Amino acid sequence: MSSIWGNTIKLSVFGESHSRGIGGVIDNLPPGIEIDMDEITFELKRRQTGSSALATARKEPDIPEILSGVVNGKTTGTPLAFVIYNSDQHSKDYDNLKTTARPSHADYTGFLRYKGFNDHRGGGHFSGRLTAPIVFAGAIAKSALKQKGIYTVSRIKSIMDVTDSDWDLSCMTYDKAQEMKKLIIPTADSLAAKRMEEVVLNLKSEGDSAGGVIECAIMNMEKGIGNPIFDAFEARLASLIFSIPATKGLEFGRGFDVTHLKGSEANDPLYTDGENIYTKTNNDGGINGGITNGMPIVFRTAIKPTASISLEQDSVNFVDKTNSKLTVVGRHDACICVRAVSVIDAAAALCAFDYLVEEKMF
Amino acid sequence: MSSIWGNTIKLSVFGESHSRGIGGVIDNLPPGIEIDMDEITFELKRRQTGSSALATARKEPDIPEILSGVVNGKTTGTPLAFVIYNSDQHSKDYDNLKTTARPSHADYTGFLRYKGFNDHRGGGHFSGRLTAPIVFAGAIAKSALKQKGIYTVSRIKSIMDVTDSDWDLSCMTYDKAQEMKKLIIPTADSLAAKRMEEVVLNLKSEGDSAGGVIECAIMNMEKGIGNPIFDAFEARLASLIFSIPATKGLEFGRGFDVTHLKGSEANDPLYTDGENIYTKTNNDGGINGGITNGMPIVFRTAIKPTASISLEQDSVNFVDKTNSKLTVVGRHDACICVRAVSVIDAAAALCAFDYLVEEKMF
Amino acid sequence: MSSIWGNTIKLSVFGESHSRGIGGVIDNLPPGIEIDMDEITFELKRRQTGSSALATARKEPDIPEILSGVVNGKTTGTPLAFVIYNSDQHSKDYDNLKTTARPSHADYTGFLRYKGFNDHRGGGHFSGRLTAPIVFAGAIAKSALKQKGIYTVSRIKSIMDVTDSDWDLSCMTYDKAQEMKKLIIPTADSLAAKRMEEVVLNLKSEGDSAGGVIECAIMNMEKGIGNPIFDAFEARLASLIFSIPATKGLEFGRGFDVTHLKGSEANDPLYTDGENIYTKTNNDGGINGGITNGMPIVFRTAIKPTASISLEQDSVNFVDKTNSKLTVVGRHDACICVRAVSVIDAAAALCAFDYLVEEKMF
Amino acid sequence: MSSIWGNTIKLSVFGESHSRGIGGVIDNLPPGIEIDMDEITFELKRRQTGSSALATARKEPDIPEILSGVVNGKTTGTPLAFVIYNSDQHSKDYDNLKTTARPSHADYTGFLRYKGFNDHRGGGHFSGRLTAPIVFAGAIAKSALKQKGIYTVSRIKSIMDVTDSDWDLSCMTYDKAQEMKKLIIPTADSLAAKRMEEVVLNLKSEGDSAGGVIECAIMNMEKGIGNPIFDAFEARLASLIFSIPATKGLEFGRGFDVTHLKGSEANDPLYTDGENIYTKTNNDGGINGGITNGMPIVFRTAIKPTASISLEQDSVNFVDKTNSKLTVVGRHDACICVRAVSVIDAAAALCAFDYLVEEKMF
Repeated sequence: MSSIWGNTIKLSVFGESHSRGIGGVIDNLPPGIEIDMDEITFELKRRQTGSSALATARKEPDIPEILSGVVNGKTTGTPLAFVIYNSDQHSKDYDNLKTTARPSHADYTGFLRYKGFNDHRGGGHFSGRLTAPIVFAGAIAKSALKQKGIYTVSRIKSIMDVTDSDWDLSCMTYDKAQEMKKLIIPTADSLAAKRMEEVVLNLKSEGDSAGGVIECAIMNMEKGIGNPIFDAFEARLASLIFSIPATKGLEFGRGFDVTHLKGSEANDPLYTDGENIYTKTNNDGGINGGITNGMPIVFRTAIKPTASISLEQDSVNFVDKTNSKLTVVGRHDACICVRAVSVIDAAAALCAFDYLVEEKMF
Repeated sequence: MSSIWGNTIKLSVFGESHSRGIGGVIDNLPPGIEIDMDEITFELKRRQTGSSALATARKEPDIPEILSGVVNGKTTGTPLAFVIYNSDQHSKDYDNLKTTARPSHADYTGFLRYKGFNDHRGGGHFSGRLTAPIVFAGAIAKSALKQKGIYTVSRIKSIMDVTDSDWDLSCMTYDKAQEMKKLIIPTADSLAAKRMEEVVLNLKSEGDSAGGVIECAIMNMEKGIGNPIFDAFEARLASLIFSIPATKGLEFGRGFDVTHLKGSEANDPLYTDGENIYTKTNNDGGINGGITNGMPIVFRTAIKPTASISLEQDSVNFVDKTNSKLTVVGRHDACICVRAVSVIDAAAALCAFDYLVEEKMF
Repeated sequence: MSSIWGNTIKLSVFGESHSRGIGGVIDNLPPGIEIDMDEITFELKRRQTGSSALATARKEPDIPEILSGVVNGKTTGTPLAFVIYNSDQHSKDYDNLKTTARPSHADYTGFLRYKGFNDHRGGGHFSGRLTAPIVFAGAIAKSALKQKGIYTVSRIKSIMDVTDSDWDLSCMTYDKAQEMKKLIIPTADSLAAKRMEEVVLNLKSEGDSAGGVIECAIMNMEKGIGNPIFDAFEARLASLIFSIPATKGLEFGRGFDVTHLKGSEANDPLYTDGENIYTKTNNDGGINGGITNGMPIVFRTAIKPTASISLEQDSVNFVDKTNSKLTVVGRHDACICVRAVSVIDAAAALCAFDYLVEEKMF
Repeated sequence: MSSIWGNTIKLSVFGESHSRGIGGVIDNLPPGIEIDMDEITFELKRRQTGSSALATARKEPDIPEILSGVVNGKTTGTPLAFVIYNSDQHSKDYDNLKTTARPSHADYTGFLRYKGFNDHRGGGHFSGRLTAPIVFAGAIAKSALKQKGIYTVSRIKSIMDVTDSDWDLSCMTYDKAQEMKKLIIPTADSLAAKRMEEVVLNLKSEGDSAGGVIECAIMNMEKGIGNPIFDAFEARLASLIFSIPATKGLEFGRGFDVTHLKGSEANDPLYTDGENIYTKTNNDGGINGGITNGMPIVFRTAIKPTASISLEQDSVNFVDKTNSKLTVVGRHDACICVRAVSVIDAAAALCAFDYLVEEKMF
């Protein structure tokens, strides 16, 4: 199912960067979920961040039109289809990419996969713009999860060598998480954000780009959720996260770092107040055996530097099979992280929601 | 689909550590694939490593019986079912785990998920033993892939703070990869293996455990394979890798490290010899836009330290909701990596095979 | 997957009769398939038949807009999304149906299933209008199948007690099949069509309705297609046919009638001309063991009389749980068969196409 | 998914008539379901009916062994695997079928589909014996459904021209349904059964075979179950029924016969006692718009005459492409209906259970 994601909630995403529109169909939504268009618009705008100097200059506002599945502001339970029409298109910018591949981009592999019929303009179906439907669906998930006190919070953990300070999730609240969403570079330490911005702007001025690590937590997640063996919570979420362009790594809890700890250090000791059960540490990131344990679900995603840079690069003409030089023109983000953070956040909400709908908790 | 994996090849895994048997059904195998029982047995033995001081003492040999789907040593194209009967069971060892959770294990979450009906003995369905069916299916995949010159190679990249030296995949051959499979601790540098062994044995003597990082490469993979958006090669493989117990992280190519590079450093420049197209570096790990580009597919998996350790730990009785101390008895691996390496290797082969069968390349 | 159909080709259908629009997303289309908008429009118009005295008076033309997945008149291989905007809506006609069920319609069960949140206007998601996306997808399938000489042909076998004469499929051609598509009531015997029309018009004048049987054949289908056990050709097609509103029965080949024959009469003897293999009769309808055998795939679908009739009927108010009388106003087909024939025909093509795409025959 | 059925409950069936064994894996069973081995054995024996003069003489008792997923007689919630070992095999009987096709059987199409690698002995994966795993899974479903007062009842409606009298489902009880299960030919009218038996025995003595129609009802089914558009209750059930060998037709409620009624006759008027809602007739067979309405779900399945008959038939050698004569030896049912009735009954229960597990009603 190439462009459909979800086990119960099925999100079918469509569109190319320069097609008539992009959008999605969300199947199996429970009936009666309130659709908060303000929240959806807010999240789409976060992803878009057209105003920021850090992101690309594409100006068209991402205003979705809902085609079906909503009556009186509530889901009907039948498929919710939505479309965001494309308007601000500079198709000419991409003419040379029809035969010459941007290094580390999908131009060459897309050509292979689609036998030359794919829409190369603006990255086509590979465009980062195709993450907007995920953000849309995530916004609906968040509205629903909020009813149960479940929410997501995300930050940029690092950009290049600038790392944010630790955050204390035990003090996290829904309101704090919402505040972080308003930041261009959401971090625990505002100075870190300032330094990250400098790094990105410097690279931008050089025609270069930066990557980073995004950390996300799902707070107050229901416990006992996840289906071993192959539908472990990590597995289902991973299938979504690794579908987001530029993702090169994913880790849960202590992640790769845990391989430097002894078992006695890595294990999360349990304790109880007689009612609920907790762990003293959260090295496992809220999941054991693929099943949530009630602690925050914490994961980090590695986002590589934007592949499209202004500097001249070695490439090939993949039709003629000749070596060539390539200088990419057009608008590109110097650091995709500042936009990807809203996508990761949406993906986390969507995955949690998918499980909970399956469990008939809505 | 909790215990079924695959898009075209469907592997349905069953069993508990102490049930009558474990096994699987492999659906949609192409007809006419040769079943090499020696290769299957070899791979199962690698996973089992009963002889090694590094692994658990469970002695029963994993001898699979094929129940269907094979005639005259070749697949019929109908479901191939196999079973490995359980025999060497110390069920008593697990009596206290029915109500008291091993920290960072699935005892508590399994209780939540299955409402107390799950088989707690030996980890039940969560047991590492349930990876044997993945190894079995992977062995069949490897036999088939070999016909096309495709093979996997895996090593232990690091255990605790001991890291293997770089390996040069441009010199890799099928025969070298096979040689590495014979090593208890497969590394590029045999001294690193020696030091890893010491680290593990030391921790074992302390009743503690170690984790590590496993690196795997799929060599000579067909290019143009993978289905954006949500069936990216990374996404499908991730859904399998994160289903393997103890996995806490997964990264492709340069992985998390790439977030410290500029775009101009991270991008893989392309070149051609007029016939094929290559990249000078392989920071993307052989995948662009979710589609294979013909370079080796390289990924690393973080395996946490074995959760079952002999040291006393803080825990809870999750039925009574009381705090307690727990000392785990029974047989446990001091470092699960030495067994997981064969599972990761099998998973990589299975995923590659699943895609290629879907593309009717068999 | 409530509103997604297909194993490889995934058709995700959305919309309600009175929502902004209806449409679909078609995933996994092969790249390079020519999109013939004339054929699509022709097929949609057949389904709509707004001009006919036999069908409802809804006047809006079903003009689809393609949102993605097509460049230069050919599929890109990424999702093809399309929408047909709704315009000619008489929502007021349906006010009383919010609480009072039309007998044998989905008003009451829709209320149960969607907890009162469903869009009751015009039947909402249950509307026969939702078959237009199937016709759209079927038209694309037909264009593709035509390249391989495969085509569908459909007729109305019977309406009430009027039965069409036998048709001889051995003389069928693509052109003849196309000619039949132009008939309001496609039959082998034009007199039968005339009598069917009279029957329907009589019932219409009485405020009543008629059902009928539609027969469809897939001609020149590839042989060896179908996947036992549970993905038998009949099973996959049945899952689509029984999704079409008003379907009450489905039979293949000789169907229910075969139960009156001895095995020696029912069996289809085989013969060969040394090159191909045929059967002398086609009681099995072109399928053995769930796999196509190269003979025409013949099936019949029973379509019940339109449930919406103008006569007063006994009903209930399902909210208040009181008995009531109901007289349905609004536009309704006196015999849905004349429209359903294009839907069945499209479904057959879509199913055949789904299998052939899976087999990489496109 | 060729040999996996179910949306939530996944039944993966494996085996060939002459392989080591046949069986299945049932995934996603709720934990805590009681496994009644007596009921399972009873149902398997019904299907087998080795003692009856009407069925084949294969003598081996179908004794299943459960390999996993059950502890203390209750499901654990992890996959339940079971195997029925094959023992009474007359492989030699089938030697000529390797190249010569039994008319209306799957010998030729199986050869096409599996490129000659399939196991032709005893029909291989196409054998009616492969319905035993469906019966096994259905028996578990029935045990679970019984807790909610839901049960299935099935009869042979007709064999050749002998038709059973009407049955009055309003008087049906669980106990009566159980009584019917004990009959070799379950009918409402015992005289009809007697005449059916005569017809079958006559045909058997002639070396010929008979087909028939099986009618099944799901009693007390939960209402509001089914997911339009493509997961209509009829659609999901149809996908299972058409997977059962020899099925040529399926109809719900009044079925094909409803096409002879006017809408005013066919519609099921609703009424209420102030608490529940009923229909006066049940022409729709308990389903409207793909969703159950609380009335009995009634469907009929057309089973063709057993294709394997002792009379000489015209056939082909499909390897050499030559015409030939074939006389089938070996054991064959003169009327498969007497065994299929338990399979249809099991399929109905399995489908109902699959929906209810999905709705978390267990």
